[in-house]
Amino acid sequence: MALIGGGGSGFIGRVHAAAALLDRRAQLVAGALSSQPDRAPAAAAEFGIEPDRAFGSYRELIDFASRLPPDQRIDFVTVATPNHTHFPIAHAALQAGLNVVCEKPMTVDLGQAQTLARLVEETGAVFALAHAYSAFPLVRQAREMVHSGELGTVQAVRVHYLQGGLRGLVPGQPPPRAAWKADPSLAGPSGAMSDIGTHAYHLTCFVTGLAPRAVSCHLRTYHPARPLDDYGHAVIRFEGEALGTLTVSQATHGRLNDLSLEVDGTAGSLAWRQEAPDQLVVRRFGQPVQVYERSTRAGYLSGAGRAACRLPGGHPEGLLEAFANLYCDCFDAMVLRATGHAAVLRDSRYPNVHAGLAGVLFVQQCLSSHRADGAWMPLC
Amino acid sequence: MALIGGGGSGFIGRVHAAAALLDRRAQLVAGALSSQPDRAPAAAAEFGIEPDRAFGSYRELIDFASRLPPDQRIDFVTVATPNHTHFPIAHAALQAGLNVVCEKPMTVDLGQAQTLARLVEETGAVFALAHAYSAFPLVRQAREMVHSGELGTVQAVRVHYLQGGLRGLVPGQPPPRAAWKADPSLAGPSGAMSDIGTHAYHLTCFVTGLAPRAVSCHLRTYHPARPLDDYGHAVIRFEGEALGTLTVSQATHGRLNDLSLEVDGTAGSLAWRQEAPDQLVVRRFGQPVQVYERSTRAGYLSGAGRAACRLPGGHPEGLLEAFANLYCDCFDAMVLRATGHAAVLRDSRYPNVHAGLAGVLFVQQCLSSHRADGAWMPLC
Amino acid sequence: MALIGGGGSGFIGRVHAAAALLDRRAQLVAGALSSQPDRAPAAAAEFGIEPDRAFGSYRELIDFASRLPPDQRIDFVTVATPNHTHFPIAHAALQAGLNVVCEKPMTVDLGQAQTLARLVEETGAVFALAHAYSAFPLVRQAREMVHSGELGTVQAVRVHYLQGGLRGLVPGQPPPRAAWKADPSLAGPSGAMSDIGTHAYHLTCFVTGLAPRAVSCHLRTYHPARPLDDYGHAVIRFEGEALGTLTVSQATHGRLNDLSLEVDGTAGSLAWRQEAPDQLVVRRFGQPVQVYERSTRAGYLSGAGRAACRLPGGHPEGLLEAFANLYCDCFDAMVLRATGHAAVLRDSRYPNVHAGLAGVLFVQQCLSSHRADGAWMPLC
Amino acid sequence: MALIGGGGSGFIGRVHAAAALLDRRAQLVAGALSSQPDRAPAAAAEFGIEPDRAFGSYRELIDFASRLPPDQRIDFVTVATPNHTHFPIAHAALQAGLNVVCEKPMTVDLGQAQTLARLVEETGAVFALAHAYSAFPLVRQAREMVHSGELGTVQAVRVHYLQGGLRGLVPGQPPPRAAWKADPSLAGPSGAMSDIGTHAYHLTCFVTGLAPRAVSCHLRTYHPARPLDDYGHAVIRFEGEALGTLTVSQATHGRLNDLSLEVDGTAGSLAWRQEAPDQLVVRRFGQPVQVYERSTRAGYLSGAGRAACRLPGGHPEGLLEAFANLYCDCFDAMVLRATGHAAVLRDSRYPNVHAGLAGVLFVQQCLSSHRADGAWMPLC
Repeated sequence: MALIGGGGSGFIGRVHAAAALLDRRAQLVAGALSSQPDRAPAAAAEFGIEPDRAFGSYRELIDFASRLPPDQRIDFVTVATPNHTHFPIAHAALQAGLNVVCEKPMTVDLGQAQTLARLVEETGAVFALAHAYSAFPLVRQAREMVHSGELGTVQAVRVHYLQGGLRGLVPGQPPPRAAWKADPSLAGPSGAMSDIGTHAYHLTCFVTGLAPRAVSCHLRTYHPARPLDDYGHAVIRFEGEALGTLTVSQATHGRLNDLSLEVDGTAGSLAWRQEAPDQLVVRRFGQPVQVYERSTRAGYLSGAGRAACRLPGGHPEGLLEAFANLYCDCFDAMVLRATGHAAVLRDSRYPNVHAGLAGVLFVQQCLSSHRADGAWMPLC
Repeated sequence: MALIGGGGSGFIGRVHAAAALLDRRAQLVAGALSSQPDRAPAAAAEFGIEPDRAFGSYRELIDFASRLPPDQRIDFVTVATPNHTHFPIAHAALQAGLNVVCEKPMTVDLGQAQTLARLVEETGAVFALAHAYSAFPLVRQAREMVHSGELGTVQAVRVHYLQGGLRGLVPGQPPPRAAWKADPSLAGPSGAMSDIGTHAYHLTCFVTGLAPRAVSCHLRTYHPARPLDDYGHAVIRFEGEALGTLTVSQATHGRLNDLSLEVDGTAGSLAWRQEAPDQLVVRRFGQPVQVYERSTRAGYLSGAGRAACRLPGGHPEGLLEAFANLYCDCFDAMVLRATGHAAVLRDSRYPNVHAGLAGVLFVQQCLSSHRADGAWMPLC
Repeated sequence: MALIGGGGSGFIGRVHAAAALLDRRAQLVAGALSSQPDRAPAAAAEFGIEPDRAFGSYRELIDFASRLPPDQRIDFVTVATPNHTHFPIAHAALQAGLNVVCEKPMTVDLGQAQTLARLVEETGAVFALAHAYSAFPLVRQAREMVHSGELGTVQAVRVHYLQGGLRGLVPGQPPPRAAWKADPSLAGPSGAMSDIGTHAYHLTCFVTGLAPRAVSCHLRTYHPARPLDDYGHAVIRFEGEALGTLTVSQATHGRLNDLSLEVDGTAGSLAWRQEAPDQLVVRRFGQPVQVYERSTRAGYLSGAGRAACRLPGGHPEGLLEAFANLYCDCFDAMVLRATGHAAVLRDSRYPNVHAGLAGVLFVQQCLSSHRADGAWMPLC
Repeated sequence: MALIGGGGSGFIGRVHAAAALLDRRAQLVAGALSSQPDRAPAAAAEFGIEPDRAFGSYRELIDFASRLPPDQRIDFVTVATPNHTHFPIAHAALQAGLNVVCEKPMTVDLGQAQTLARLVEETGAVFALAHAYSAFPLVRQAREMVHSGELGTVQAVRVHYLQGGLRGLVPGQPPPRAAWKADPSLAGPSGAMSDIGTHAYHLTCFVTGLAPRAVSCHLRTYHPARPLDDYGHAVIRFEGEALGTLTVSQATHGRLNDLSLEVDGTAGSLAWRQEAPDQLVVRRFGQPVQVYERSTRAGYLSGAGRAACRLPGGHPEGLLEAFANLYCDCFDAMVLRATGHAAVLRDSRYPNVHAGLAGVLFVQQCLSSHRADGAWMPLC
C-alpha cells in the first residue's frame, strides 16, 4: 500500500492507513503524504514509512512504484487528497498498473470521471471509492434484506446527512474543517452535496438497488464567507414509482455526522443511523418493532450482514472497522486480479468506478437542477 | 359545547369531548354525533348527552342552538366529521353566531376556505382548527425560542409525518382506518397531504413564524386500492433564503404517528418528535446537546412553554392534554368575545381561520405542483 | 365521588379528579379539599364542587355522605391527603359504608394497615391504592406475558425509581415538594422508600406475580436538612431462587420520575420505563430485540394490554389515562358490590387493601433491616 | 509485544493484538497462542507472527524472550489466557523482567494477587489489567468531572453489567461462550462476578475515586448445567456515606454487553452506557439534560476526555480504540521505565496491579459474603 495525502490536519488519511492494515493483509510501504514536500518526512515518520519511501509528490511515488521489481511491487495506492487532485493521481496510478482506493468525490468533473471509468475497464484494475458507510455490517444486512425481497418492492427512501461543522467558522477563529473544502478550485463546484451528498447517494443506491432516473435539487449557501453549497435537498425519481429524498447539511448546529437512511417497502420498512451503526430497525405492519443488532453471534443476520461483523454484539465497532471491511473487499478483488481472474467490476461488493461515476453525475445534475430552479435532470 | 360528528368508530371525537371538558371550563350539552340518525341516541348516551339534545343532523342541532335563550346558549360547536362536511357545518354554525372548533383540513376547496375566513371576520367569531400538535408544551417552547431570536435566523426546517396504517389494508380485512378517508367525494382531492400534511405544515409555520412563498410537490399513491395520495413530499420556499422540506407518508410499515420537526437557525438548532413530546433537543455549536424536558417545575422553560405544562416532569402527558391546551386558548378567546373584547384573530394562540385557509391553500398548491411535475406554486 | 385533600399546591388531587371523571362514569359531588378550612371554598370552586358540598374536614364530609338518601349516595371517596391521615380517613369512610381510593402509602404503621384490611373484608368495600403505574397498558401487557408463561420462570427483577427533586431544596428557596413529606409526624417513619418505594414494590409484585419472602435494605439521608431517607436500596428474596433489587432515590440530580422495571425469565426478558410508557422492550436469545408499542390497533398485544389502550398508537397517553384505567377497574368492582356480587378482593385488577398492606409491611421491614445493618427481614 | 493465548475461538486476543498495533507504537513479534501446541503454527500465521517465534507454551516464549539481546528485547507480554493461568504466566514474565498486560481477573486467588503485587513493586515493571472500559474517552471525561469536584461529593453509584449469552446454552448446541468459563478449575471460584463484575467494580472505582469499605453480596446460578454464579448483586459501602450497587448478569435474555454506570453527586449526576460509549449524560437540578459527545473537536471536554478521542464526533469509535488507548498509556509507562524514570504505579492512568488486586479481593469477598447470607465483608 502506498498512501497519497493524509499527512495534514485531517483525519481521513489516518483512518485509511489504520483500516487497511487492521487485518494484516496489507503493509504501508510508501507515501506522498503532503502537498508541501518539506512536510513529507515528518508525516512519513508518523505513518511508519521509511524515509527513503517518503515522496514529495505523487508523481515521484508512482514513478518509484513503476520501477519496482514484480516481487516488491506496490499493489495499490490510496488517494486521500483534496478533490481536484483525485483525477490526475488516480489516472497516473491506473496507467502505472496500480489498483486504487480513492476518496470521494471521485473527480470534480464528469468528463474526468468518464475517463477514469474507461481506464479502469481497459486496465482491469481494482478501483474503489471510499464510501465506507456501505461497509457497516447492518448496512449490508439492510441491502441483503432488500435484495432478497424480504421488504417487498421499495417505494420510498429518505436519507439525511446532517453536520454542523460550518457553524463554528466564526471570524478570527481557525476553521475546524479543512480550508480547501471551501475553495471551488480545490473542492470542485459543489460543497456539501459533493462532500457528503455523494456518500448519502451511494448509500441509497447501495441499499435499495434502485436505478435512479432523475433529480430535482435545491442548494443553499448559508455560511456568509464560503462560496459553496452547505445545505442541499434533492428529490430523486427511481425506476418504477419509487421516490427518494436526500438532504445534506453542514450548517445544522450540533449535528456531528448524522447520516440516516429509511427505506419503505411494500412488505416492511428499515431505518439505520450511522451514529448508532450497530442497530437496524425493521418494522412490519402489525408486528412489534424489531431491532437487529450487530453481532458475530446473531443467527438472524444474513450472510453478508454477519460476515461483516468482527466482534460479539454489544462491543461497539466504529468507522475503522467499516473501512477495514471495505479494504478487505478490495483486497479480495486485488487477489483475483493478480491471479488472473477478471474482477467483476460492475458486481463488486466495494463501491467501484461506476459508483464513483454515478456520484459525480449526481453532483453535476444537482448543480444543474439547482441553477434551473429545480428542473428535473436525468441521472441515467 | 355541542359536538358534531364523533359517534363512529374513530377516536378523534372522543378526544375532543374529553379534552374540552378536562379543565371544567365547558360542558357538553348537545350533539349530532352520527350521519346515520338512528345511531344518534346510542352515541349521545355514550357521550353523556341527554336524549333530547341528541340530534340526527347538524342542521337540527344548530337550529336548536339558535333558539336557546341567551343564558342557556351554546358557546361553540366542535366539528369532527368527514372533510367534505366541514364547510357547510362551520358555515351554518358561524351564521348562527356560534364559535367553532373544526377538524382539519378546514375545507376541501379553497373557495370554501375563503368564504369561511370572510365569515369569521364578519362575525368576530372564535374559529379554531384542531392542530393540537402546536399545543404541546415543548412545541410552544420551541416557537418562543425561535421568536425570541434565541436560535438566530431560521434557515432550514425539516418536517416528517410518517404513518403506516395503510399497509394493513389487505383485501378481505376490515380497514383499520375510516373508509371515507379513501373516498375523494368525502375526503377531498388529497389523501395524506390533506390528512396529515396540513398538521405538518401548520406545525412548521407555527414554530418558525416564517412566511411561506412557494411549494414544489410530488405525490404518490402506493396503495393499489385507494385513489388518493398516501405519500408526498413538498419543498417549501420561505421568506429570505429559508428552505423547508415536508414529507408525509401513510405507507411506511410500522410507523404509528411519527411527526417530527427540525429547525436550523444561525444560532442553534431544534428537534422535536410528537411520539416523545416531553423532550425538546436543542443543539448549539461547541456545546453539549441539551434536552429540555416538560415540567411545571422546569425554571428554564419560557413563559409559553411552562404555561402549557400540567404535571411535574417525568409524569407523561399526551395528546389529551395538548388538545385541552388548545381548548383553553379557545375558551380564553370566547370569553373575550363574549365580554365585548375583540378577539385578535390573526395573533391568536390557537390555529385560527387564517391558519386553516393557509392549510387548504397548501394542499391545493401541492396538488397543482404535483400535476405540473413539481413546478413551483405560490403559497401567498 | 368525594375528594378528600388535593386542594393544596400538589398535583395529585387534580389528577385523581380528572381521571375519575374522564370516562364519564363518575361525578365529583363533594370535597374536603384542604386541612385549612378557610381554603375549602376556593378549592371547591376550582374543582367544580358546589359550595354547600365543600367541607372543612373529612369528618363533616363523611357525616354528610352518611345522611344522604340511597339514591343520592356517594359511592366512594378518594383520599389524597398527607400520609398520616390516610388511616383515620379511610377508616371512617369504610365504617360509613363508602368505597375508598387511597393514596400510597396506605398507612404509616403496620397495625393501622392490618386494621384497614380487616375492615375492608368485613364491609366488602372496594378499597384501592393509587398505584397507577400498574395501570399503564404495557405494564398490563408485561404482567400478562409473565403470567401466561411466555417468559418462562422469572428469576430476577430489577426496579429503579429515581427522582431528583430534593436537590433543589436549597436554603432560602421554597421547596419544590410538599413540606409535609419531610416531616416524620406527617409522612411517617420513611421518606423515599415509602413515597416512591411502595410504587416500585407494587409494580414488581404486580408484573412478576412472585411471592416475596424477605428483604435486606440500606437507606441513606443525603439531604442535610431533612430527617427521612431520600435514597434506599432493597434486595428482595422471592419464592424459588428469584432475586429482586429495588433502588429509590429522590436525590439524583435531574431525574424526574424515572421508574423502570426489568424482568429476567428463563424464556425472555422485559424492560419498561414509566417516562416512555408506550414502549415495552422484549428480548429473547437469538432474536432481534422487539419493541411492543401501545396501540388500540396492535393485534399482538394481549387482552389486558390492549384493553387498557385508549388511543391508536403513536398518540401519546400519559399518567392521566393510567389513573383513569385504575378508576375504571374500581368502578367495575363498585358496580359488582352495588349489585350484590361479592367483589373478589384478592384477585382484583386494581391494587387492593392487601397490596396496600404489603406495601406498608415492605416499608416497615426495610426500616428494620436498615437499622439491623441489612439483616434479612421477612416479607410474609 | 508477545501474545500469550488468543489463538482459540475467542475474540479478545485478536482485539489485544489489533489495539496494541493500532498506533504503530508496538510490533507483535512472538506468540504462544494456544494451549494446544499443534495449533500454535496456524494461529501464529493468522496473527502475522513468524513461525520460528510461535511457541507451544508460555514457558518457551518467556525463555526465548529472556535470551534475546537487549536491542531486540521484547518489551511486554499480553496474557489473554483462561483465568487460572494468569498468575503463573504473569509471574514468570515479571521474573523475566518483562512488562505485562493481563486479562481480568488478575488471578483466581487472593494470595496469588498479593504475590504479583509484591513482584511488580520489586521489579518496577509496568503491569496493566485489561479493564479497557475505563479507556473510553467519555469514561475518562466522567472521571475527570468527578475528580475536579464538578459533581460535588459523590453519594451514590449504580452499575449494571448485563449479558445474556448463557441463555443460548441449550443441550445439543455448541455453547456461544468458551467452555472453560464454566469450569471452576480453569475460571476460578466465581463466574459472572469474576468475569464481568471485576470490570464493573473497576469502572466504579475508576470514575468515582471512592475508597471501598465493605461489600454485601448475593449470587445466583440460574443455568442448570453450569456450576458458577451467572447472576450477582453487590451492595458496596464506600468511604463517607456513599452507597454503591453493582449487578451482573449473564442470564438476561438478549442483553449483549450492557455495562452502564450512574453516579450521583451533590452537584450533578452522570450516566454512561458502554453500548453507546460516545455519549455521556450529565444532569444538574434545574437545567436541561446535557449530553456530552465524544469528539476531538468538542471544546467542552476536559483534558483527559479529549485526549482519548481519536476521531471527530459522529464517527463512531469502539472497543478497539478503547483498548488502544489503554495500550498507549501502558507504552508511555514502559518508556518511562525503560528510560530510568520510576513508573508511578499507584497513580498510573492504566489499571495497575493494585487495581487487579482490588478486583480479586472484591470477588473473594463477594463469595464470602454470599456464603454468609449477605454479611458485610471488608474491602480494605
